[in-house]
Amino acid sequence: MPSKTTILGSGAMATACAILLADHEGQDVAIWARNEETASELRRTRRNERLLPGIVIPHHVQITHDIAAAVEDAEFLVAAIPSQYLRSTLESLSKYLTGNRPVISVVKGMENETFLRPSQIIEETLGSRAVVALSGPSHAEEIARRLPASVVAASGDVALARRVQEMISTDRFRVYTNQDLIGVELAGALKNVIGIAAGISDGLGYGDNAKSALMTRGIVEITRFGMALGAEPDTFAGLAGIGDLITTCVSPYGRNRMVGERLGKGESLAQILKTMDAVAEGVSTTRAVYQLAEKKGIDMPITEQVYRVLFEGLPPAEATDRLMNRPVRGE
Amino acid sequence: MPSKTTILGSGAMATACAILLADHEGQDVAIWARNEETASELRRTRRNERLLPGIVIPHHVQITHDIAAAVEDAEFLVAAIPSQYLRSTLESLSKYLTGNRPVISVVKGMENETFLRPSQIIEETLGSRAVVALSGPSHAEEIARRLPASVVAASGDVALARRVQEMISTDRFRVYTNQDLIGVELAGALKNVIGIAAGISDGLGYGDNAKSALMTRGIVEITRFGMALGAEPDTFAGLAGIGDLITTCVSPYGRNRMVGERLGKGESLAQILKTMDAVAEGVSTTRAVYQLAEKKGIDMPITEQVYRVLFEGLPPAEATDRLMNRPVRGE
Repeated sequence: MPSKTTILGSGAMATACAILLADHEGQDVAIWARNEETASELRRTRRNERLLPGIVIPHHVQITHDIAAAVEDAEFLVAAIPSQYLRSTLESLSKYLTGNRPVISVVKGMENETFLRPSQIIEETLGSRAVVALSGPSHAEEIARRLPASVVAASGDVALARRVQEMISTDRFRVYTNQDLIGVELAGALKNVIGIAAGISDGLGYGDNAKSALMTRGIVEITRFGMALGAEPDTFAGLAGIGDLITTCVSPYGRNRMVGERLGKGESLAQILKTMDAVAEGVSTTRAVYQLAEKKGIDMPITEQVYRVLFEGLPPAEATDRLMNRPVRGE
Repeated sequence: MPSKTTILGSGAMATACAILLADHEGQDVAIWARNEETASELRRTRRNERLLPGIVIPHHVQITHDIAAAVEDAEFLVAAIPSQYLRSTLESLSKYLTGNRPVISVVKGMENETFLRPSQIIEETLGSRAVVALSGPSHAEEIARRLPASVVAASGDVALARRVQEMISTDRFRVYTNQDLIGVELAGALKNVIGIAAGISDGLGYGDNAKSALMTRGIVEITRFGMALGAEPDTFAGLAGIGDLITTCVSPYGRNRMVGERLGKGESLAQILKTMDAVAEGVSTTRAVYQLAEKKGIDMPITEQVYRVLFEGLPPAEATDRLMNRPVRGE
């Protein structure tokens, strides 16, 4: 019997994962869509024109709003739900997601108030089970177009990480295993904060020197935060750390970078959020990270300035001045 | 008496350094141009329209072809000469460059055959003297336009690095000190090899996921090379390492990235070099690094593929396939 994987979510990354898994013979794939209309539209057209224009979802991928049908015989689950909806979605599905099936998480973010990572929310809602975080520079649009990418599959359970590596690797999608689930999840959440900062720099017209310096100092402060929470520093120098950060900060399509760019050009956060139809994870992550860093006394100068711009109305140019005019010292 | 700094070279980075130094009151600056016509043209127009369009060189910067006049009373020298011309230029000027004046080097590269770093060439040609390497994400065009940038001033002589930090820092140009001269110089040379690889990826149409992964794996192999030659690993995670690498790989104007992009689109190296009027340091650096890595047994998969594309005619798409299809393993 072929192995089956059920993807919870029908966004761009959910669809990209379905395509990767479906490119392997002997693997069945189902997409569960939260919205019934979305499910029937995707099933009818085999396309998600709004999020992944021009991409065809392979005909053998099952697409359904019926969770019982979606998870029937599934050996693995993929969580591909925005972090702020992860808990409520999993809670509403929990009675179907039984049997300790391992979860591959592509969720990037940190829950407000609780400061929990996606794998912790998965455990709290579905009960103790193995989680593998798949992370790295991985814009869904490019994966769906089968352009080359390299990511990590991170889990404390090495054998499971290797199994996921086999299931999802293709000759264009290279998967490295990694054992630092905490670091990979934190890096995936925090890079979006730096992505907003990079966008602000772009919006102010500052150029590549400024943005590269921001990214370099950004990974330093993310690493500091991660180590305080038990992550391995090496993770932040890898694909899920600096690799993902680079893509987030340079791609013109990144939602978090775009929020920053519009802030840098003078729009308010309220104006920007009103016109965006996809979630920019970095906005809520900035709040969670800033609050936790304050509480734990971790020095995060870039995150602090992004927080002030987003939530206290600090003018972006002034935030930059504050960063540039801190006392100079050794690197 | 004001302190005077003489800049050896009249290219884009030489001019950007002159502007930074001249922005400080009480600092005299002279540019020495190798070519007499260049000197009189720059003196007459106060512009270098070919390399830095629209930028005005401050009126109080002395510009001359007369080396004796240029270095008269100079307390510091700045070496801003392409690495492959550094030795011959300094040899020809050595009888004027006496007195142990410290040298600030913005040279990035490694000498063919000898494998020497710029500071070593400076010592061999001018005699033992203190060298400070100024490096980091620093496209000259952006510095000259006074856009924000952050770099390191690296020297074993900490007091001297601090002096350079004071001389050249402005409210838009932030200088951190660093003690790892070897690492900073090696990072500055090797990032151009990865810049060519990133350009090849662009030329093949591969997107941001692939390029970010290449940059992440690139800094890993540069760090490995640096450590084998006595550098500190932390340097490669800083501004002179990943910071400079990012700018080199993402800026559309970078010469090394551009060489790679044209290779990726199918042009030969000979065709490309015929049409470039500025030096792409990475081409000769790739040869030197590849040969030294071979000799010392250092594993450098990206550098090896760039070498094969540049000098052995390997088709770029095949080089990428070789990188993507190495056995997958832990990160």
